[in-house]
Amino acid sequence: MKELTVGIDIGGTNTKFGIVDREGNVLHQGNIQTTVHEEFKGFFDSMANALRESFKDLPSDSSIVGIGVGAANGNYYTGNIEHATNLRWKGILPLSKMFQEEFNVPCILTNDANAAAVGEMVYGNAKNMKDFVVVTLGTGLGSGFVCGGILLNGHHGIAGELGHTSVNPTGRYCNCGKRGCLETYVSATGIKRTVYKLLADHLEPSELRGISFDNLNTKMITDAALRGDIVAKESFEYTGRILGMKLAETVVHTDPEAIFLFGGLSQAGELIFKPTIRHMEANLMPLFRGKVKVLPSALQNQAAPILGASSLVWDHFAKKGMEVA
Amino acid sequence: MKELTVGIDIGGTNTKFGIVDREGNVLHQGNIQTTVHEEFKGFFDSMANALRESFKDLPSDSSIVGIGVGAANGNYYTGNIEHATNLRWKGILPLSKMFQEEFNVPCILTNDANAAAVGEMVYGNAKNMKDFVVVTLGTGLGSGFVCGGILLNGHHGIAGELGHTSVNPTGRYCNCGKRGCLETYVSATGIKRTVYKLLADHLEPSELRGISFDNLNTKMITDAALRGDIVAKESFEYTGRILGMKLAETVVHTDPEAIFLFGGLSQAGELIFKPTIRHMEANLMPLFRGKVKVLPSALQNQAAPILGASSLVWDHFAKKGMEVA
Repeated sequence: MKELTVGIDIGGTNTKFGIVDREGNVLHQGNIQTTVHEEFKGFFDSMANALRESFKDLPSDSSIVGIGVGAANGNYYTGNIEHATNLRWKGILPLSKMFQEEFNVPCILTNDANAAAVGEMVYGNAKNMKDFVVVTLGTGLGSGFVCGGILLNGHHGIAGELGHTSVNPTGRYCNCGKRGCLETYVSATGIKRTVYKLLADHLEPSELRGISFDNLNTKMITDAALRGDIVAKESFEYTGRILGMKLAETVVHTDPEAIFLFGGLSQAGELIFKPTIRHMEANLMPLFRGKVKVLPSALQNQAAPILGASSLVWDHFAKKGMEVA
Repeated sequence: MKELTVGIDIGGTNTKFGIVDREGNVLHQGNIQTTVHEEFKGFFDSMANALRESFKDLPSDSSIVGIGVGAANGNYYTGNIEHATNLRWKGILPLSKMFQEEFNVPCILTNDANAAAVGEMVYGNAKNMKDFVVVTLGTGLGSGFVCGGILLNGHHGIAGELGHTSVNPTGRYCNCGKRGCLETYVSATGIKRTVYKLLADHLEPSELRGISFDNLNTKMITDAALRGDIVAKESFEYTGRILGMKLAETVVHTDPEAIFLFGGLSQAGELIFKPTIRHMEANLMPLFRGKVKVLPSALQNQAAPILGASSLVWDHFAKKGMEVA
């Protein structure tokens, strides 16, 4: 019997799902809209139907052993999505319980960055590591910590909110209600804000002067930087300096072997890695210098959130020391 | 057979040791000077002799099951003291191996703040906690993290160096070679520096104007503050503001249930706890507000470092799931 898991990534706009084997091959992939259902139950039923449809295509000698879900504000301990700011359904959504009752297999929920960290450990570049951090650079900045081979959930199930460490207490306004949080500088949105700050402060000509804030994206900034645009290049330097400074703080907390960068901004390659590493090393306590690697995630593709979520199930069985079947 | 452990706290000046039972009772306590021996072997022999002497007084139905040692730069993985800045013997000192060979019992080494964290878990206020942080406020600022009931050692065995997170990259000079590290502001030395800064900046009369930097200590600042001295009071406010700001960053890393403050500065009670808690809450990401306790350590007495070190042995057996005897 071939054992398979379901990985689900619930985003604000789209919910992606896939059926994944132990080696990380995605046998089937699907997609439903997150936003169309007024009630959470409607969304859940639509998701359950899509899954049941996809099960029909599976080989007869296979079985689904569990469901993993990554979602912002997903609480590992309760299995609930709690007060998500990016979904239309408010309050407490008992997602794990609903999936378990519907499909009679374990359902493991965590936040999307934690799912990425477990994914990196199960399928990615952290396969042989026990102590590492994954930093996801998307609309915001998320992070997941693995310490001693175990995902760090914390006492309240909300560990790893690096995006809300402080760069400048009187700095940029953040969605969380504070000011100067790391994710207001280091994220797809953060680097856009930095480009606009640099365009405001300086006189240099830049191809980015012709693009509105709403239309600007990381890819455009990357391409401009590769063409030599001074403002675009400086925006990566500025972003990497702040990320490097803050990673130096994270390193002295948990002493990781490596920090993986994941998501759009990290795909700018050396443009972001070089200043990040340089400023991390410069700001590190000397005892730690030269010891901690900053690496790209191995899961830089469309299926990554699904792989991350599905890996929660393998991790769940590994932790329990349980046979899957 | 009554099982006993040895706890040893190696400080720059004095080395304290004690024999401790499972309940944390110290049956015997002793002390040798750390500084008199030119060679590390001489210090070790003197320590071993003192231990053998102390074993003579023990009840005949008791046995020593292990030795725990807390020392700055003690590496849990290697059992070595590595490049300690506070000892006269340089390089790598294979302490655990030497004790194991001498007494034929396990010897567990870690840094002093980690020992304090395990001590809090085994004997102190963290008995029923799985996720907490201990911050030791002595000459410097040390910290130990327990996550999921396990001491966080990190990949290189040097996790938890909160004293070297950054308050201000162009701030006070630190022994580590950087500038503006947390311990240059928040520690027994840090608050002295703050008193001197405030005396330099302000005109207020203060009884502390009559005391030299070398003679000033935390107790004097505490007593002056309790008598209403404006500079002394403000120095606690200043210290608590910085500590609170930085603890807010630590909280979003590991999501602890509580943070324990340990050591001289923490014995100033409300003078330090009130501003620390106020500024931690003000700087916390809203999701975490009101969730994390800041508490005094339960091990605020002379025997605390010995208890902490001895508890490493019980923790070692608990982790291995081994019978002690």
